[in-house]
Amino acid sequence: MTKSKGLLIILSGPSGVGKGTICRSLCRENDTIVCATSLTTRTPRRGEQDGVDYFFVDEKKFCELKDQGSFLEWAEVHGNLYATLTGEVERLRQKECDVILEIDVQGAAQVRRSTDEGICIFLLPPNMEELWQRIEGRGTDKPEAMQERFRNARRELMEVWQYDYVVINNTVSEAVNDIKSIIMAEKCRVERNKQFLKSFVGKGDGH
Amino acid sequence: MTKSKGLLIILSGPSGVGKGTICRSLCRENDTIVCATSLTTRTPRRGEQDGVDYFFVDEKKFCELKDQGSFLEWAEVHGNLYATLTGEVERLRQKECDVILEIDVQGAAQVRRSTDEGICIFLLPPNMEELWQRIEGRGTDKPEAMQERFRNARRELMEVWQYDYVVINNTVSEAVNDIKSIIMAEKCRVERNKQFLKSFVGKGDGH
Repeated sequence: MTKSKGLLIILSGPSGVGKGTICRSLCRENDTIVCATSLTTRTPRRGEQDGVDYFFVDEKKFCELKDQGSFLEWAEVHGNLYATLTGEVERLRQKECDVILEIDVQGAAQVRRSTDEGICIFLLPPNMEELWQRIEGRGTDKPEAMQERFRNARRELMEVWQYDYVVINNTVSEAVNDIKSIIMAEKCRVERNKQFLKSFVGKGDGH
Repeated sequence: MTKSKGLLIILSGPSGVGKGTICRSLCRENDTIVCATSLTTRTPRRGEQDGVDYFFVDEKKFCELKDQGSFLEWAEVHGNLYATLTGEVERLRQKECDVILEIDVQGAAQVRRSTDEGICIFLLPPNMEELWQRIEGRGTDKPEAMQERFRNARRELMEVWQYDYVVINNTVSEAVNDIKSIIMAEKCRVERNKQFLKSFVGKGDGH
């Protein structure tokens, strides 16, 4: 509508649902959608780059930043620490970029507590069998770790009721299209265009 | 997401903004979006067909139907009566069609009073000069009638605050795309997928 601060989109869902793939695809296809790079203490997986996939830091540095109040959210998942830098997100939104946070359900809950500006999207697998296969197919975990990941995923599904939108990760392109539509629609919301509408309507009272 | 009742979309906006063009274009491009045919007592314009553009009826028939409670909304605009048949809308929604009502702001207000199921979209002209040109360009009215139409349009703009979404009719294709995104996004709303999500999540409490 008019030039304004970018949206804050929270993309979450159970472990293994494919949040990362969807997020990367969205950002690759759209110059104005950016994934805020998270901070983590976990070991980089093969091919992951520091500052691109994550900011990889040690626990000492992580705790320092946490104590400085630099995080929009932080969480421990499977023994590793993850966080989103508030300043990084604000910097991108001020540049009129829509910032997408790809975070687990714990992190999403924290963001919801710290701001009501987020648009919360829950990514669902097409079915539970598919989710199991994805967790298995990742091939980075031992059988017991996979079992735990799957049990966690089942619990995480219960969080869907706290979200605004639900998108099924049937195919990447379908899910990406749904999210693009959600972003476009949210930009058309009357409540997001108050300033522009007030000047257009002239004497609108804006209630 | 799952097969379910179609959406009810209310497309409104000031007189002359181009609601009809957008509505026809949407329905032409999408098999599942249908415009509910309205009832009117006004004289058909050149090229308009009964049962396609409108159901053209006389005032006696109109009042009969009104007294039977058959209308979702009705209104008098520039001396003519218009109405939307509740049964017609329900019939289409049950067939999983998204029903779009192209109605003036008075009619939209009435629909909002009779149901909270409608998604309200306000169509804006790119600017007021453009709106005047469109009213003039229509060429069906006398100068005084055009002046009145324009004054009404200015008043009608104030209604934008009652709507969920605002779409600018810059070009037909842009406006149509925005509305298609709104429809797609609305179908992803958690609150619209409660039944499906309850069965997916299993023991979800659905609050």
